[in-house]
Amino acid sequence: MTGAPEGSGFLAVDSGGSGLRVVVGTAERGPLARRTSDEPVRTGDRGIDPEHFMTRLVPLVRALTAEAGPVRLTAAVVGAAGLASLGAGLRAELPGALAREFGVRRVALAADAVTAYVGALGPRPGAVIAGGTGLIAIGTDLAGWRRADGWGHLLGDCGGGAWIGRAGLEAALRAHDGREGGSARLLACAEDVFGPVAGLPGALYPRPDRPAVLASFAPRVAVCAEEDPVAAGILRAAARHMADSAAAVCPGGASRVAVTGGLFKIGHPLLAPLDEELAKRLPHARRVPAEGDPLHGSVRMAAELSAGPLTLPDDETMLSVTTRSGD
Amino acid sequence: MTGAPEGSGFLAVDSGGSGLRVVVGTAERGPLARRTSDEPVRTGDRGIDPEHFMTRLVPLVRALTAEAGPVRLTAAVVGAAGLASLGAGLRAELPGALAREFGVRRVALAADAVTAYVGALGPRPGAVIAGGTGLIAIGTDLAGWRRADGWGHLLGDCGGGAWIGRAGLEAALRAHDGREGGSARLLACAEDVFGPVAGLPGALYPRPDRPAVLASFAPRVAVCAEEDPVAAGILRAAARHMADSAAAVCPGGASRVAVTGGLFKIGHPLLAPLDEELAKRLPHARRVPAEGDPLHGSVRMAAELSAGPLTLPDDETMLSVTTRSGD
Repeated sequence: MTGAPEGSGFLAVDSGGSGLRVVVGTAERGPLARRTSDEPVRTGDRGIDPEHFMTRLVPLVRALTAEAGPVRLTAAVVGAAGLASLGAGLRAELPGALAREFGVRRVALAADAVTAYVGALGPRPGAVIAGGTGLIAIGTDLAGWRRADGWGHLLGDCGGGAWIGRAGLEAALRAHDGREGGSARLLACAEDVFGPVAGLPGALYPRPDRPAVLASFAPRVAVCAEEDPVAAGILRAAARHMADSAAAVCPGGASRVAVTGGLFKIGHPLLAPLDEELAKRLPHARRVPAEGDPLHGSVRMAAELSAGPLTLPDDETMLSVTTRSGD
Repeated sequence: MTGAPEGSGFLAVDSGGSGLRVVVGTAERGPLARRTSDEPVRTGDRGIDPEHFMTRLVPLVRALTAEAGPVRLTAAVVGAAGLASLGAGLRAELPGALAREFGVRRVALAADAVTAYVGALGPRPGAVIAGGTGLIAIGTDLAGWRRADGWGHLLGDCGGGAWIGRAGLEAALRAHDGREGGSARLLACAEDVFGPVAGLPGALYPRPDRPAVLASFAPRVAVCAEEDPVAAGILRAAARHMADSAAAVCPGGASRVAVTGGLFKIGHPLLAPLDEELAKRLPHARRVPAEGDPLHGSVRMAAELSAGPLTLPDDETMLSVTTRSGD
C-alpha cells in the first residue's frame, strides 16, 4: 500500500454457503467499503480450504483498500459457517496467510454462530437463536460460549427451515395416504409447489441440496398455519424446539434473547408461538430485536480487535484469536 | 434347453438393495433351485436399468435351469424394490426380454411391497407392515391394493430403521447439548458406536448410504429401551407410526396384520408397543406371524402364474401382468 496509512484498519469477513462478504474499515471511522463474492469457499476432505479462501479474499481486499484509501490493516475477523467442525485448516493457516498478505497482526476466527450472536446482541450476556435452513442456539455469560443444536438436517437443526418444510411435506403425504395427522391443505400446497406427490421422492432425493429443497417449503407451511391446525402444530413444535435450544445455552440471570436469520422472515406465525414457548422456558428473559446480521457482528468484533483485545471469551472451536508480534 | 421339458416351470425373482435372489421351480414340484447375486441392479436416470437387470439375471437362470433339470419356463414374477416410482423401464422392456431369452409367456412385475405381502399373508385380505431401513404398509381386499408411507427417510418411512436410529441420535445430541428430551444412555451408546459426537456430522453427511448409517443405530435404541424412557418413547412413537400406516391400508373387516423385514429382528422392545398400538387402531385385527419373506411371495405368485392367472388384483404401478400369445 502507498500513501500515509492512518489509524487502525480492520478487515471483517462473513463466509457462508452463499459466498463471502467483506468489509474494510477503521476503529475510528467504522466501515469504509464493502464487497461481496457469490462463490462460496470450497470445502474439501480437510474441511474449509484455506488456500481457496485466500484466493477468493485477496482480490476483494485489494479492491476494498483501493476504495477505502490508505488503511493499515492491523486486525481481521473471519466469521465462517462450519468453522467448529470443518475449520482445522483455516485455524492452522489463515492467521499466517493474512499476516503475509496484508500485514494483519491480530486475527480472530469465529464460528458464524458467534458473529451472529455479536451482530444481534453485541458484547452482552444472553442467547441468540440463529435460524435459516438449519438452526443453532448460542449463548454466553461473557466467560464462555455454549451452543445447542446446529447438527444438520438428519441429526437435529430442530425447528429450522428444513425441519419445518420436511414436517410439512410429511403431513402432506400422510393426507395422501390416508394416515392420521395428515393435512389436505398442506397436500394441496405441496402439489402446487412440486407437482403430483408421487413424483416428490424423485424430485428430492437425487438433489445435492436436499435441506434447501425441504426448507423452501417452510414459508408455505407458515401460510397454511393461519387456518390449518396441522401446519400450526408444526410451527408450534418448531418454536418449542427453538425454546429448548435457547434454554440450554442462555446463562442464568441473562435477560436478552434475540432471533436472527432468514427463517424469521416467516414472521408472526412462527414468532407468536416462539414468544409463548420462550416465556415458558425462560420466564426471566425477553425477546429483543437483533441489532444486526452476522457481518455486522464480524465488523463489531474487528473494530474492537483493531483497537485492542476482544472482550468476548475465547473458545477452542468457536472463537480463536491469534496475535503476532510485528516484523 | 435340451431334453424333454416337463410341467409348467417358473422363475421367481426378488431384486433389492442387497442384490438378486432367483428361484426356478415348477407348479407341481415347487422350488427346484435357488441362486443369489450380491450385486444390485443399477438405477440410472431412467430408473431401474432393464438391460443391467437382464445382464445380471441371465447367467443365474442358465445355472438354475442346468441344476433343476429340463424345465419349460412359462411364467416369471419379478419383485423389485423401487418398482412403483422407478419401474417404467422394467415395465416397458422386461416382459419382451424375458420372452426372447427364456420363452416366458406370462410376466408379473411386482413392487417389493407386494411380494412382501404375499410372502407374509398369501392371497388373503389384510395388511402387512414391511420394515427395514425404510417402512411401508400395504393392504388388499383382493380387489385392489393400498399402500401407505414408503416415501424415504426425508419424507416419511415413519417408524422404520432410519427413523428410529435418527431419533435415537437426536436424543443423544439433546443430552450432549443439555436440551430437554435428551438421553444420557443414548449419548453413551452413540459415542460407543460413532466416537465423540462432535465428529458425528462429519461421519454421517458425506456418506452416500446415510439412511443405512442411521438405521444401524436402531438396534442400539432397542437395547437402551429396556431401561431408558427416552429410548422406549422412540420405539413407542415408531410403533404408533406403523399402526397409522397399517390402519390406512387395512381393508374394513380384515382380521390379519403381519410384519415382515429385518427391522423386526429388534423383537420385543418394538413388537410389544406395536401390538398395543395396533389393538387401538385396528381392534378387530390381530397380528399373525409372517409365513415367509418377499422371495417366498415371489415364488408363490410365480407358481400360481405358471398354472393360470393370478388371483391378486392388478395395479398400474404395484402389480402389472403381461401375457403373450405363443410363437
